[in-house]
Amino acid sequence: MGERRVIGVLGGLGPAATVDFYAKLVAATPARRDQDHIHVIIDADPSTPNRNEAVAGVGPSPEPQLVGMATRLAAAGAEALFMVCNTAHAYAPAIRAAVAVPLVSIVEETAAATLAATPNARRVGVLAAAGAQDARLYQTEFARYDVSVVEPQGELRERFMALLYRIKAGDPTQDVRSGMRAIALELVRLGAEAVVAGCTEVPLVLAQADMGPVPFISSTDALVSAAVAIGTGARPPLNAR
Amino acid sequence: MGERRVIGVLGGLGPAATVDFYAKLVAATPARRDQDHIHVIIDADPSTPNRNEAVAGVGPSPEPQLVGMATRLAAAGAEALFMVCNTAHAYAPAIRAAVAVPLVSIVEETAAATLAATPNARRVGVLAAAGAQDARLYQTEFARYDVSVVEPQGELRERFMALLYRIKAGDPTQDVRSGMRAIALELVRLGAEAVVAGCTEVPLVLAQADMGPVPFISSTDALVSAAVAIGTGARPPLNAR
Repeated sequence: MGERRVIGVLGGLGPAATVDFYAKLVAATPARRDQDHIHVIIDADPSTPNRNEAVAGVGPSPEPQLVGMATRLAAAGAEALFMVCNTAHAYAPAIRAAVAVPLVSIVEETAAATLAATPNARRVGVLAAAGAQDARLYQTEFARYDVSVVEPQGELRERFMALLYRIKAGDPTQDVRSGMRAIALELVRLGAEAVVAGCTEVPLVLAQADMGPVPFISSTDALVSAAVAIGTGARPPLNAR
Repeated sequence: MGERRVIGVLGGLGPAATVDFYAKLVAATPARRDQDHIHVIIDADPSTPNRNEAVAGVGPSPEPQLVGMATRLAAAGAEALFMVCNTAHAYAPAIRAAVAVPLVSIVEETAAATLAATPNARRVGVLAAAGAQDARLYQTEFARYDVSVVEPQGELRERFMALLYRIKAGDPTQDVRSGMRAIALELVRLGAEAVVAGCTEVPLVLAQADMGPVPFISSTDALVSAAVAIGTGARPPLNAR
């Protein structure tokens, strides 16, 4: 058991996903009183441009805002950084180049959690946003484990993105939930042996209970586990790999 | 409509109450996309000592940690500070003396919200923790409006404090909920015309629906309203009074 560490969170990408992460982090921390918890600092800068548009080359880069959040968190004392957004990890190299504090990768944590949950799976479905797909975040990471990835493509991807924007607009209704479940099941029909919520909006509307016997891995939960382990000193502030 | 402002939050007092505040802040912000939200920075330092013990003189002062959070938030760019803990407002003068950024008072906001909700009430029940009671936070504030305050005293106060510590330990069970409701109703029996959740753990287990026709005012909700108004530029970053 090492030293406890201050956790820095790049948030607001979107805000509801950051709330979900923080709620799960507090609930997952072994604590009987306020003083047992982890020191957490969250910076949620809404001026961060849309990551999917940026990766597609049709919008400004979010790099200045992401580096800004990371820099402020480091200056405030954060000893490990966590970014509650998969797609924004397309800009992880720029953040790592700008700050000395380690940025723990949600993609690496989620892939490791998937392998731990389903060690024999050779093909996984990843509910990743357009930008995360175009940056090949999960394709590249799962390839290291010799696991192939199926993501929503074409019309399925358009439906998926429309659902993400509805969640971001504050509409996690039954309609959105059933739509998300249908897309997840379509990945299973295409051969996925497990489904990964590779976007932090997804766990706001989809859970293991919706997926029956198909293993469901939440990237939010994977990042929470890493944050608790690093914050309590059970693990060094390094990435899973 | 003024300029949007960066909101700084002193959190972790306790952590579940900060999650509750942040969740309600995000939900209450008029927003259709990530970029419509308020820039929020949260610092939750668990090394902050117990505020009730400090006010009672049987524990160390939380002043260094509270000033530390406020100082880091100001350095990170916060333009108005919000502290998600009523009792910690016993140390508001020390925070205000240490940082130039205004600290919005949860006590002033809550009293103003109470007067708005029940303009004719002359006696209100306040579910305030021992430290907030001993520092006379609500007694002093409501006196300005010529409203008297009834708080849990003696054995009732002991039961109330035991419930708060159970909530902080992560136990918001039905047992805790019914215990809290019983204490609130006891204040009504003692003449309270409205009940104020003057502790941010209370709204985690008690809501208007539990109180029937008796007006219930949540200090968390009052602080959220102030944060949204100030963050969106609808109100200057000043206290209610």
